[in-house]
Order: sequence, then C-alpha cells, then structure tokens
Amino acid sequence: MDQIQNRPQIVVAGAGFGGMEAVRALARAPVDITIIDQHNHHTFQPLLYQVATAALSSPDIAWPIRSILRHQENARVVMAEVTGIDIAERIVRAGPIEVAYDFLVLATGATHSYFGHDEWAEAAPGLKSVDDALEIRRRILLAFEHAEIADNPAKRQRLLTFVIVGGGPTGVEMAGAIAEIAQHTLRSDFRRIDPGAARIVLVEAGPRILPTFPERLSAYAQQSLERMGVEVKTDSLVTDCRKDGVVLKNGGIDSETIIWAAGVKASPAAQWIGAKTDRAGRIKVGPHLEVPGHPEIFAVGDTAVLADPDAPQIPGIAPAAKQMGKYVGRLIAARAAGREMPKPFTYRHFLDLATVGRKSAVVRRGRLQLTGYLGWWFWGIAHIYFLIGVRNRFVVALNWFWSYVTFQRGARVIAER
Amino acid sequence: MDQIQNRPQIVVAGAGFGGMEAVRALARAPVDITIIDQHNHHTFQPLLYQVATAALSSPDIAWPIRSILRHQENARVVMAEVTGIDIAERIVRAGPIEVAYDFLVLATGATHSYFGHDEWAEAAPGLKSVDDALEIRRRILLAFEHAEIADNPAKRQRLLTFVIVGGGPTGVEMAGAIAEIAQHTLRSDFRRIDPGAARIVLVEAGPRILPTFPERLSAYAQQSLERMGVEVKTDSLVTDCRKDGVVLKNGGIDSETIIWAAGVKASPAAQWIGAKTDRAGRIKVGPHLEVPGHPEIFAVGDTAVLADPDAPQIPGIAPAAKQMGKYVGRLIAARAAGREMPKPFTYRHFLDLATVGRKSAVVRRGRLQLTGYLGWWFWGIAHIYFLIGVRNRFVVALNWFWSYVTFQRGARVIAER
Repeated sequence: MDQIQNRPQIVVAGAGFGGMEAVRALARAPVDITIIDQHNHHTFQPLLYQVATAALSSPDIAWPIRSILRHQENARVVMAEVTGIDIAERIVRAGPIEVAYDFLVLATGATHSYFGHDEWAEAAPGLKSVDDALEIRRRILLAFEHAEIADNPAKRQRLLTFVIVGGGPTGVEMAGAIAEIAQHTLRSDFRRIDPGAARIVLVEAGPRILPTFPERLSAYAQQSLERMGVEVKTDSLVTDCRKDGVVLKNGGIDSETIIWAAGVKASPAAQWIGAKTDRAGRIKVGPHLEVPGHPEIFAVGDTAVLADPDAPQIPGIAPAAKQMGKYVGRLIAARAAGREMPKPFTYRHFLDLATVGRKSAVVRRGRLQLTGYLGWWFWGIAHIYFLIGVRNRFVVALNWFWSYVTFQRGARVIAER
Repeated sequence: MDQIQNRPQIVVAGAGFGGMEAVRALARAPVDITIIDQHNHHTFQPLLYQVATAALSSPDIAWPIRSILRHQENARVVMAEVTGIDIAERIVRAGPIEVAYDFLVLATGATHSYFGHDEWAEAAPGLKSVDDALEIRRRILLAFEHAEIADNPAKRQRLLTFVIVGGGPTGVEMAGAIAEIAQHTLRSDFRRIDPGAARIVLVEAGPRILPTFPERLSAYAQQSLERMGVEVKTDSLVTDCRKDGVVLKNGGIDSETIIWAAGVKASPAAQWIGAKTDRAGRIKVGPHLEVPGHPEIFAVGDTAVLADPDAPQIPGIAPAAKQMGKYVGRLIAARAAGREMPKPFTYRHFLDLATVGRKSAVVRRGRLQLTGYLGWWFWGIAHIYFLIGVRNRFVVALNWFWSYVTFQRGARVIAER
C-alpha cells in the first residue's frame, strides 16, 4: 500500500467500541492510522436486540465507519477481514492487502461460545452483529407466519415456543421483547393462531438471572418477566440444541426458535500473535494493556483480560471497551511523542443496566438501585445519549415513542437473503 | 384449512398495489378473503431505488401485510409461495396449504426480463423487491470499498464504473442517485480513491431516455443527468452482461457493478391457469379484467393486459395496478351481492413522474409539464402522500430532509446475508 512511512504507523483491528475510541484518541497525534474491520459499519451493540425484535432498523444503530471518521484525516478505513499477523515483520494481513505497523491495537471483540458445541450454532443463533440480528428477526417473524398455516397442532405449538438460552442482560432483553411482540404487536394480526398464547422460556444454567446484579434486582427482573408471561427456568443447564428444541439437564422444550445468549468467547486475535489467553480466549495483557513481550501490541475490550489475577475484573460491556480503547490511544500518542505513559490502566465502573420490557428496567449505580418505570427512563436516556449522531438519536427516539404509543414495531420486514 | 364455507371465498394472489386494493375494496362485503404473498410485507416499489441507494431503510417503505389488514376481519393473510392452481376444482396451492376459491384475483406482478438471457441476472441484478434493493445497495457500497484497497489500476477503474441498463424512470433515478453518492455522500470518506471520479453510465437501447415522456422532458432529464456527471448512451443495445462489464452493439464498458432496469415480464400466473398471454407473459383479459372463459378469475396490474387490441394501453405503474385492483374488488362485491357490474374497466391516467436527482424531476399531467425544482417538490409530495401510515410518511420525510441538508445517506449498512 502506498504510504508515507516516516510517521508512526498505527493499525487498529476492529471498529467496535474499543477500536473506535483508540482511533479517536489519536486524532491529533502525528501518526497514520489504519482501522480494519470486516464490516463497513460500527455497530451500537447494546441496541442490537431491538433490531432482532423488529423495533429498529439496522441503519438506526449501525453507521459507516468511514462516515464517522471522515474528518479525521490521519485515519483511513479498510474493509477487509484480518487473516493473520506477522509479529516479526510487523505486518497485518487483511484480505488482499498487507499493512505494516509500528503499533498494533487488537480490538476484534468476541463471538458466541457454545462451550465446545459449535454444532448448536445452526439451531441457536447468537446476537453479535447486524447480520445476526436480521437472522434472528427473520426466525421470530417466520415462526408466527408458519404457525398460522401449520395444520399439525404439535408443530404449531413448537413454532409458537421461543427459547432464549442465557439469563444475562441480552437474554432478559430478548425474552421481554418477544413477549411484547406476541402479546401486543401481533395481537390483532392473525386469524387462526393466538400470538398471545406463545410460550416464551428464558433458560439460565445458574441459580438466578442477571447474576452480575444484586439479588434484589435479579428477583425484580424475574418477577417482571413472569408478569409479562415469560417462563424463567433457572438451574437449567442446556445439554443439546436441535432444530426442534432444546434438551435441558432437567427436561426438554420443543421449539423451532432458539436464541443463544449464554456465552461469549474472544475473537481469534490471540492465535494471530501466539499470545497466552484465559479460558474464554482473551489475551492476557499487562497493566498498560500491552501484550507481554510485545510493548508495541495492545489488546482492548472483549479481546483482552488483565493478566494480574489480583486485578479487579473488567466486565464485557461497552463502557469498559471504550475506556480501554481511549487509554491505549493516549498511550500510543504519548509514546509517539517520546513520552512514556506512567499510570497503568484502571477501570471505572459506572452502571449496571438491563431493560426487561415496556416500562421496566433495572439499574445499579454504586449503592443506588432503580427499578420499574424510573429505571426504564434512565435506561432509555442513557442509550439515546450514547448513540452516535444527532440523526440517529432522533430517529431512535421517534421509533421508541411511536412503539410506546401504538405497541407497533416499525421494522417487521422479513428479508430473505 | 378450517373455514366456514357458506360465504363466497375470495383468494387474492399477490399483495402488491393491485392485490391490496382488491382486498380493501371488499372490506364490507360478506365474503372471506385469503391474500397470499411470498413476502410478509407490501412494498412501496416507487421508492425501492432509494433503499438500493442507501437513502432509506427497507422498513421505511415495506409494511407487514398483516399489519395493514389487521382491522379488516374478513381478510386473512397467508405468507407462502403460490405453486399451482387447479381451475377445475377451484383450488390454489401455496406451500403446505390449499385454499378453495369462488373468485380468484391474480395480482402477482412482474419480474425482470433479460430478453431470453437469464444468465445475465447474476451479473446485472434488477430492482423489484426489498431483497433486490439490499443486494444492489451491497454491490454499490462494496464497489467503493474494494476500489479503495485495489492495487491494480484497471481493476480499480472497473470497480469505480457503474452501468445502469435501461433509460426508463427506474434507470434514470438509479443513475442520478449513484451520481449523488459518488460526488456528495462519499466525498470525504476515502483516502486513496476519489469517489467523485466514478464513471456512471446510463445505457438505453432506444433513441432517448424516458421514452414514455414528451421529447422535451426526455431532453431535460438527459441534460440534468449529464450535468450531474452521468454519461447517457442512447441507441446502445446491450448484447452481453458479464461479471466484468457489458458489451454493447456499439462498444463495451468494463464495470463490476451493473444494474438491470431494462425490461419486465409478468409473473408465471398465466402458466398456473393455462391462459393466453402477450409476449411479456401478461394474461389477456376481457373488458371486466376477467380471464376469458373464466368469469370467476381476474388478473390485475402487471399480470394483465387488455385483450382488445384497440383498447388504450395501461402502463405498468402503481396507480394503474391500484385502479384495476379496486375495480375487481368492487366487481366481486357486486357479484357476491347478486348484482352484475355493468361498466367495463376504464383506466384514468393522472401523471407521469420521474426524479433525476437532488432538486430535479420531470412531471407531466395532461398538458402541464414541470421540470427542475418545482417538479422535484411535486414528485416528493406525491410520493410522501401515497406512503402508507403516518409513521412512514414522517420517517421518510425526515430522512429526505436530513439527506438534503447534509448530503448524507442514512442507510449505508452492508449486510452480508
């Protein structure tokens, strides 16, 4: 590639929250940045479940990386998949091109983990990308369509049963949203089936949902879901996912729509550089988020874990990835200017947030705990605030207002491809 | 299927403009209606090109058929593909189900015609459905992405060349919109290529573009396009479409992005019932839009052509399909009530409309001809007015306003599936 090689060359792999913050933190540094992503868009992952449940369109929460960075002249965007890294030559290979680096930031995020059962992926897709969300939307909407024309009662019941595996925030949000679709959005739309009779089951292997929240909030979320008609099954380890249902340690559920929200594992970034990882595949990084033995390589977000076993754990959420990305961007800017960054990275935890459904969410900030309507407003305002761009904030707010008033969902399009 | 069979059973195949109007015209009739469509959504086809060019999201112009009809209790919606019709037994087969009819309305529309060269479809997709639009959007945006990382100058030039085949309204609109993307939307987004240097060629086999419009408006549209940097090639018959370009009678163009807007042929409805057709595959219908010999079967919209060679030709546009659908719905309602519908169908032509780009459109209404800014306002208001639903009107208007002010496009997401 044609580059002026006399300025430090920075390569950022991945345009999620961590990667984008790293690039922005370098906006005024005398460096050349190449950010590489397999997609053309940055995705606001916290609202992906709303695309999956037809409340928002994908362009409402996904923006072209180029467009975000168009005025940052030291950054160029390459849409390609990283295929390998030569750490001796300091070269990243991505599709047809090779990019040399002086500093490398690995921010390629995480993907679903099926705990060694990758064959479950076909039956139980997870929710990490816009494509995942559109696939899940397609499956949910098609299940109702197919139930309407199914003559076999067992098949109809299977089509009207939705199983969400994993009781973390994503699982709770998905279960609540599907319950709303069934009971409100589709209420008058079918003639043979009653969408309100759909069975929605949230399955969690541990003793309670939202395990990272205080017990009181877990209990509140479970009660809210149950009031919405969701069955919550805790202590229920999944032992098989098939096209026609899930098998649990303690029973089984016939269902043609299974959604996986149970586990994540890091992207293969560690393999590219032969780094040490934890069991989830995250690269073990030093106190400055650097890869041990490679002070020129950093890992952030879901790709990284602090190597120090005594360091407080950093959760796999957007604000954590952003803090890590920003820290690394500043560190590289300092180094490029000949200064060292003395202080190790410290994570500041602001909030735990999960929404359960219409008018209900749980929020924890330090000792403050919010539930119900107040929590829901807090959740909504926080998410609108962090959306990129005036237009998207406005469109998302408008869609939410419209859905709230009418119980309708604006994006009920099944696309085939 | 479980139905009370003592009311006349109406089956409508296809939920485009014609089919939907037929169903709505039967809203108060004592009949049972089944509307069958392979998609879950009705598509506002006149704005499909804006989805293809990333100005709108697909849910902005596509609405669930069920949602539109949810308060019409005599109508039920079946999402399935029609596979055959037994005209002796009066049964429509669609996917796993069979539906008996007393009256049948064929409104399955048209698809692209490659004039006997279906092998061109892969290289030159057409624009008839939401899926088509998303595929064309993907190709246009990916062409710029791939050009940015292409090292071979010939390949880069091929990637930056866009050929639109067919100079009707769709071809003109696509060419204008791609020119805007290249020159405005992407202006600051790339570092190696200059999107403004993209070559956009509109190819038309006949002597002028917009051949159904007065010559003055054709000439105006061509000048507008040329001012926007589009090359207009008239008298240029395409003789081959390949992955790397098109071959014309009078030359060739290297291009990796070819869009087919040249011809349509009717859906296979005629084959299902063994009816006589014209060369475009449209069913020849009598003066009441009935299939000759089958007073219980009607065809409307792009599926039908008047058998009488002296009857004025009905254009393949949305208002014509709507008028035909409404007429047939009323006729069936009259017959179900024991009355005959005396007057044959007559088509009323209101408008010819085509937009060229930002601030430019051509409109003809009788002797009135509008061009430029005024035509563009007229075009915009007419389209907003005919969109279904308050929410969609507002969202589309908002998107247009935002795009107009910022030159940006809100739906630049490349989805993979």
